Amino acid sequence: MSDSQRIHITDVSPRDGLQNQAVHLSTEAKLQLIALLAEAGVQSVEATSFVSPKAVPQMADAGELVPRIAARWPQLRTSVLVPNLKGLERAHAAGAQEIAVVLSATETMNRKNINMGLEQALDVSEQTLAAAQALGLRTRAYVAVAFDCPFEGETPLAEVLRLAARMHAAGAGEVVVADTIGSASPGMVKERFAALRGVVPVDRLAVHLHDTRGMGAANAWAALEAGVRRFDASVGGIGGCPFAPGAAGNLATEDLVLLAERSGFATGLSLDGLLSAVDFAQAQLQRPLGGRSIAWLQRQRDKRREAEAMTA
Amino acid sequence: MSDSQRIHITDVSPRDGLQNQAVHLSTEAKLQLIALLAEAGVQSVEATSFVSPKAVPQMADAGELVPRIAARWPQLRTSVLVPNLKGLERAHAAGAQEIAVVLSATETMNRKNINMGLEQALDVSEQTLAAAQALGLRTRAYVAVAFDCPFEGETPLAEVLRLAARMHAAGAGEVVVADTIGSASPGMVKERFAALRGVVPVDRLAVHLHDTRGMGAANAWAALEAGVRRFDASVGGIGGCPFAPGAAGNLATEDLVLLAERSGFATGLSLDGLLSAVDFAQAQLQRPLGGRSIAWLQRQRDKRREAEAMTA
Repeated sequence: MSDSQRIHITDVSPRDGLQNQAVHLSTEAKLQLIALLAEAGVQSVEATSFVSPKAVPQMADAGELVPRIAARWPQLRTSVLVPNLKGLERAHAAGAQEIAVVLSATETMNRKNINMGLEQALDVSEQTLAAAQALGLRTRAYVAVAFDCPFEGETPLAEVLRLAARMHAAGAGEVVVADTIGSASPGMVKERFAALRGVVPVDRLAVHLHDTRGMGAANAWAALEAGVRRFDASVGGIGGCPFAPGAAGNLATEDLVLLAERSGFATGLSLDGLLSAVDFAQAQLQRPLGGRSIAWLQRQRDKRREAEAMTA
Repeated sequence: MSDSQRIHITDVSPRDGLQNQAVHLSTEAKLQLIALLAEAGVQSVEATSFVSPKAVPQMADAGELVPRIAARWPQLRTSVLVPNLKGLERAHAAGAQEIAVVLSATETMNRKNINMGLEQALDVSEQTLAAAQALGLRTRAYVAVAFDCPFEGETPLAEVLRLAARMHAAGAGEVVVADTIGSASPGMVKERFAALRGVVPVDRLAVHLHDTRGMGAANAWAALEAGVRRFDASVGGIGGCPFAPGAAGNLATEDLVLLAERSGFATGLSLDGLLSAVDFAQAQLQRPLGGRSIAWLQRQRDKRREAEAMTA
């Protein structure tokens, strides 16, 4: 297996997955979810965010969660979202080793999301990245709404390239290009990553996909073909807003692993392990979860269990 | 729009979609489904099969259906499956202008499916293709289980290439490479079509995908990238066995259209028109249908209708 056949998955279910859920998971339950992910072979998680507990009460336990993860899984790469220097301070105080900043690629999205204009948001992201590096932390920088913006329509590619280049120049360890509303097509992924490779070395590029239109797996394949080897995904596809009927969440980790492994890539993740995490998450969130492959994966597991029971 | 950006979709829902359904559609209902497909812009359908009515009672009205389609939609390209010379005779008597033969790529699949060995099935396919051409009919030839066989595991690529080349040499207008059990990955699609292009001109190659593992759209993208422009698909993804929980059917026509159009390809099909066909089919079959994009497509339609109602 050459290095080019190895892909790196950050499971973002504890953060992007849980941040919009009606049911709020306890710190204990989050640790159980992360335990199941670690057992499944996940080596990198996005664990939480240091944002206002008023705005995102689901993440209010960030300061408690981070040191408990570090104590229990010292080898697990654990990233946390920070909106600004104040968030960085809290994350650092909690012992975080890696932080992520989020920069939206349009004026309106930044105003709606963080009540700042784009240029101010860019400043804040650069300052936060610089301060984090000064503290010796690893960093990721999201470029959000990098395909379409819910307010402005298609995001100009030139703007995405400009911001990705700025995040790279600011020292971001990974520049994570995000299809925040799940509107990308594989043709767009192909085109945009071909251009992005010109401004950020491909081994520093990651892709963050949502599966709103059922194209998450196709977009992941287009990214793989473009040379991208770093992916965000969320076990069970957790992340859709439960109040929008049919709204799909993130690209499901199990879908990505199935697609990649069947296509000759190595992920290091166990599909059975991921199914156990899906079981747990849906029991906690009290709604059915799972990506597009879940029915097939569960049938395979059932068949194997039946066969084992017969020979037992 | 260059020719290379134009894709050709054969909607197989009236045949591959309906042949395994618990609810049997009347001839009138099938004509209504085809009417909706034609209204949606579909220019090619696989309408029925001339097989034993005992084995496949859902297709028992083939002899009545074909002339009624021809009378009502003289421009609609209408293909029918024929298992052998006897089926061809019946299809020809009914006025069929295009037939398809099905050759499975493994010994066991042929034995289970048509109680013949592979070499005998190859003979029958070649004879049927020759006879159909002598009658002036257009022809398609399926190479089934071209990725994996449910009985023999992965189908050797060399065997798929041999059979595809034989079907091409026998004059098949299209060689339809079929992922019959929906086990293909985009990596396999890429590899196999790169090789298939060496034995069949790419404009004579078509791909027939199932969505069992949620990789139908990703596989379609891999086929597009390999230069394939001819696709089978089934509106609403009809085609799964209703007795196998979670068993997915064919690649949904609406998923393929959404992916292709958003990626810069032209299909000539209307998503709204396809949604009407899904509505009709699920009312008839009394179960929810729709591909991976259906929830999003329906939400868009609902929003548009609400907006129209407000301005009305």
